[in-house]
Amino acid sequence: MDRRQAIEAVRAMLADNGADAIIIPSNDCHFGEYVPDYFKVRGWLSGFDGSAGTLVVTSSEAALWTDSRYFIQAARQIEGTGIALMKLKVAGTPSVAQWLHSQNVAKVLVDGDLFSRQEFVSLARELAPAALQAVDDPFRKIWEGRPALVCKPIVNMPESISGRSVADKCAAVAGKLACNGRFACIISACDEIMWLCNLRGDDIEYNPVALSYCVLTEDRLHLFCHLDCLTAQARTYLESQKVELHEYGAFRDFLRGIDPSVTRICQSSSINVNNWSAAFASVPEAEVEGRFKEDPTPGGSVAWLRSRKNSVELAGFRNAFINDGIAWVKLLKFIDENLPSGKLNEYLIAEKLKEFRSECPDYLGESFEPIVAWNANAASAHYSVTCEADAAKINPYGFLLMDTGAHYPYGTTDTTRTLMLSERNDFTGRSDRLLQQMRDDYTLVLKGMIDLATAVFPSGTRGSQLDILARGPMYPTGKMYYHGTSHGIGHHLCVHEAPQIRMEESPLVIDEGMVLSDEPAIYIEGQYGIRTENVITVVPFAENSYGKFFKFDTMTLVPIDIRPVNFKLLTHKEEQWLYTYNEHVYETLKPFLTKQEALWLWRKTTV
Amino acid sequence: MDRRQAIEAVRAMLADNGADAIIIPSNDCHFGEYVPDYFKVRGWLSGFDGSAGTLVVTSSEAALWTDSRYFIQAARQIEGTGIALMKLKVAGTPSVAQWLHSQNVAKVLVDGDLFSRQEFVSLARELAPAALQAVDDPFRKIWEGRPALVCKPIVNMPESISGRSVADKCAAVAGKLACNGRFACIISACDEIMWLCNLRGDDIEYNPVALSYCVLTEDRLHLFCHLDCLTAQARTYLESQKVELHEYGAFRDFLRGIDPSVTRICQSSSINVNNWSAAFASVPEAEVEGRFKEDPTPGGSVAWLRSRKNSVELAGFRNAFINDGIAWVKLLKFIDENLPSGKLNEYLIAEKLKEFRSECPDYLGESFEPIVAWNANAASAHYSVTCEADAAKINPYGFLLMDTGAHYPYGTTDTTRTLMLSERNDFTGRSDRLLQQMRDDYTLVLKGMIDLATAVFPSGTRGSQLDILARGPMYPTGKMYYHGTSHGIGHHLCVHEAPQIRMEESPLVIDEGMVLSDEPAIYIEGQYGIRTENVITVVPFAENSYGKFFKFDTMTLVPIDIRPVNFKLLTHKEEQWLYTYNEHVYETLKPFLTKQEALWLWRKTTV
Repeated sequence: MDRRQAIEAVRAMLADNGADAIIIPSNDCHFGEYVPDYFKVRGWLSGFDGSAGTLVVTSSEAALWTDSRYFIQAARQIEGTGIALMKLKVAGTPSVAQWLHSQNVAKVLVDGDLFSRQEFVSLARELAPAALQAVDDPFRKIWEGRPALVCKPIVNMPESISGRSVADKCAAVAGKLACNGRFACIISACDEIMWLCNLRGDDIEYNPVALSYCVLTEDRLHLFCHLDCLTAQARTYLESQKVELHEYGAFRDFLRGIDPSVTRICQSSSINVNNWSAAFASVPEAEVEGRFKEDPTPGGSVAWLRSRKNSVELAGFRNAFINDGIAWVKLLKFIDENLPSGKLNEYLIAEKLKEFRSECPDYLGESFEPIVAWNANAASAHYSVTCEADAAKINPYGFLLMDTGAHYPYGTTDTTRTLMLSERNDFTGRSDRLLQQMRDDYTLVLKGMIDLATAVFPSGTRGSQLDILARGPMYPTGKMYYHGTSHGIGHHLCVHEAPQIRMEESPLVIDEGMVLSDEPAIYIEGQYGIRTENVITVVPFAENSYGKFFKFDTMTLVPIDIRPVNFKLLTHKEEQWLYTYNEHVYETLKPFLTKQEALWLWRKTTV
Repeated sequence: MDRRQAIEAVRAMLADNGADAIIIPSNDCHFGEYVPDYFKVRGWLSGFDGSAGTLVVTSSEAALWTDSRYFIQAARQIEGTGIALMKLKVAGTPSVAQWLHSQNVAKVLVDGDLFSRQEFVSLARELAPAALQAVDDPFRKIWEGRPALVCKPIVNMPESISGRSVADKCAAVAGKLACNGRFACIISACDEIMWLCNLRGDDIEYNPVALSYCVLTEDRLHLFCHLDCLTAQARTYLESQKVELHEYGAFRDFLRGIDPSVTRICQSSSINVNNWSAAFASVPEAEVEGRFKEDPTPGGSVAWLRSRKNSVELAGFRNAFINDGIAWVKLLKFIDENLPSGKLNEYLIAEKLKEFRSECPDYLGESFEPIVAWNANAASAHYSVTCEADAAKINPYGFLLMDTGAHYPYGTTDTTRTLMLSERNDFTGRSDRLLQQMRDDYTLVLKGMIDLATAVFPSGTRGSQLDILARGPMYPTGKMYYHGTSHGIGHHLCVHEAPQIRMEESPLVIDEGMVLSDEPAIYIEGQYGIRTENVITVVPFAENSYGKFFKFDTMTLVPIDIRPVNFKLLTHKEEQWLYTYNEHVYETLKPFLTKQEALWLWRKTTV
């Protein structure tokens, strides 16, 4: 069945349902960052496999909305399918709702598994007077050769690593929910469930999670997962914590069976609309509002608790960063020594880092697709090469940007370093002016990274208040970056978590125990990209009549390339921080390095 | 009639209305910062004359809510009235609604002139099932000897000073309102009306405004004020701009007469509920929602436009700061020379500054109650002395904090300086450690002031993102201040305007032409207060593929005391800024100073 035939099959399905159109987003039913192949309906129908895009199919037309990152790729991938490309944020591009209005549709379908309750309500409002109907997976019957759902083993993370029992976590969540009487809190995010249940899975690339749901009631935690996948040890542990186990497929029926008098608690932005309907199936229409309580914690109670890492988790992170630091040092030495050969390329370097990481028996794999990008390639923020043939050769001089991370049983890492590489350490071959600009840009990125890492701030401070510390130093050059400054990092979980430090406002405060990235950047299109990223954690600084103050402590242990620094742009304090940091990296890693490695690192970190 | 009799008269009024309680806030019907005496109902009934407090009177009880600034004063002032004191933000203090619930009230009254539509709706929700009713000024008949409404002359601000015609401003406001068809935009804030109509009044202490309302329709501006007070020139100008004039008292009838089909636009937070009711009197209940449009600009369209000062207004501000700078230099020299006499006190210094300001023929008066506070007195952020008998003597050594501002026809000023004073410039008599702490605190406040003033930031930046630049330097000492960092300043208007730079989130962005204060501070209770405040304006910095960037330009021209600075705490850039600033003050003011004054200033600003 080719793409055109598949689209015709969707149209037949629409006709069977008396509908005029269907909207297909990029989500799965848990709204995670990475989507399992099973849910990639948009890719199956359109051929477009970028991370963000919405496909709309009507009885006679089809159109795909995507953003500027994907204009070229999408146009190429949908060629010949008859699908029109709709460029988001380009003047004249209609919204999905506007376009559907222009097509005079009366009834629009969505797969209710793939829309949150919140999205569904707002979409229904936009589409009125056309009707919006959520249906149960309408592609099941028509998608031939659909990839199966992955069901990998689900293991227990022992309390010696998680630092807290499931029973304890459940009590803490219940406290945050602040609900009197009987309640059922519905949790749909797989990474929240892994944290809550002290479990780890392997169902989604780079994300150690298992497909699962949870319902927490006033006296019990119900876990829904592929029970066959649970290891015996995990099952025993869960039973000891009084977790009631259910098959993944039994979730919706469980929701339908919740007593009408029970208060349903969830985040309407994270429950899919089919599950929402099931949860309220037994509640008379007029009483739905009275039986629903939005999770009272901004960002969700589970995510809130998870973001404040406990001391055992923090100790695990520190171990992970030692492992990772050792591998990075080996890689940096390898690059240093093999640069003159002229044989280095982006792919080789990414593979080499995996190889060095693998020397640690605890290494479990990368925490995201590694980014190793040479010069102009690094100006695209999420560039990655997947085979040697596509990889750029490292051909000095220039900037080599490397952003990679790993999972260990006790922590996840995420580090970016940018190296200025040259043959024989001379920077001939380019104009002095360009070289000066490169060094200044490198220094301003570093300055922003240091200024955030050394901040002191009072309790209650939100991420948006701290953001300018990382961005401010580059503003006087008229430069900025379009991504966030910082994201939370999972404890052997997803590398991207709440909270964030970014320009946009969010009510989330930056609080003790949080583990965050610190990654300002400068990208010059067609020339180079610079990003320096450390992971920092929030620790107490002082407590007095003004309240509590916090500071950051840096966890990452990878030396920072000093060669490109223009020291005139650093304050004395920033300069001190830089030297102290590199020295600290050397002192911490030295016991784990060979004599040659230690000597190499000493040379790089001592001035 | 004493207070107890007055409260009994209110109770009789409640009985006549079949009501159980009345809530009396601190507002007037325009919700300005300063309340004319005519509206001080709470003060009349309770004796408490602080700026913030809510009095509730029931048929048998009475209670006054106020915040910690006023606990002592309020307790003293309400003694013997039978009114209970309710301490806000103290554990166990009920809210007004909670307390009224405990009193089993069924019907609660408010003067609908003193509650905004927004407050009224939320209060009604809190009080349910008790009914909340807004009535028309219920105190008119019972308040004997009520102060009259002030009606001072209303003059035209010529376009040579305002820089823009009323017709132009109206067109700009209409554009922001983005309303198709017929509309009536109701404007209640007197300072917004003064700006819109190029008028200035004198009805409220320190605020050059006249009591007034406006209604802007698609083809006309209606102004409601005391017409007798309009100067002939103002009247002629308004007529030339096609402004339709109405008596202040005719406003509510005008609202009642608006055609039912017209869209009413306002900010529900700034229209009083009686006016709201009048505006919708002719609209059938079922159509009210469809006929109302909330002002689409955050903070209000008029305030948004007013906050972006035009080039003529900015030139006026610069003139005002020259006038003010000259007076300040005379004052600083006076203090310097008269310190040894031992006769200086806080009151004398405030009076002396007024005297020096009066030497400028354009001086119109102070823009707020002057703050001149010696040592511990400065630790209360809004300390002021109103007579010589209460004034502290300046008895070196220590910190003298002076925060004062003035109105000129073409601009308003607001400046704070803190001086470290000593006899014969030696700082003996206190321990070295205290002196060091005083100098460090002074330097950190200065550092924050400079760091905000020298910021560069992209278009779209909100005040809450910039706030940490001013606060950040003091955080590592575990200190902070509880007020905002910055407020907008009116152009010969109220000294406090939107937008603000503060910790709390607000959607208002900091944009070109805005005039803002920059005033970090440290207060050590019982010891001293330090605040350094300059006024800054937003100017273009760069425009490139990332968009527009802005920076600040400092307008204030008053030398900064260098003696207490601990230069070890400043970066090279901050130090440079400080010297350059003082030099700039000297160069700019020199032509306007006597030889002796110029020489004195040269000595103080040259190192």
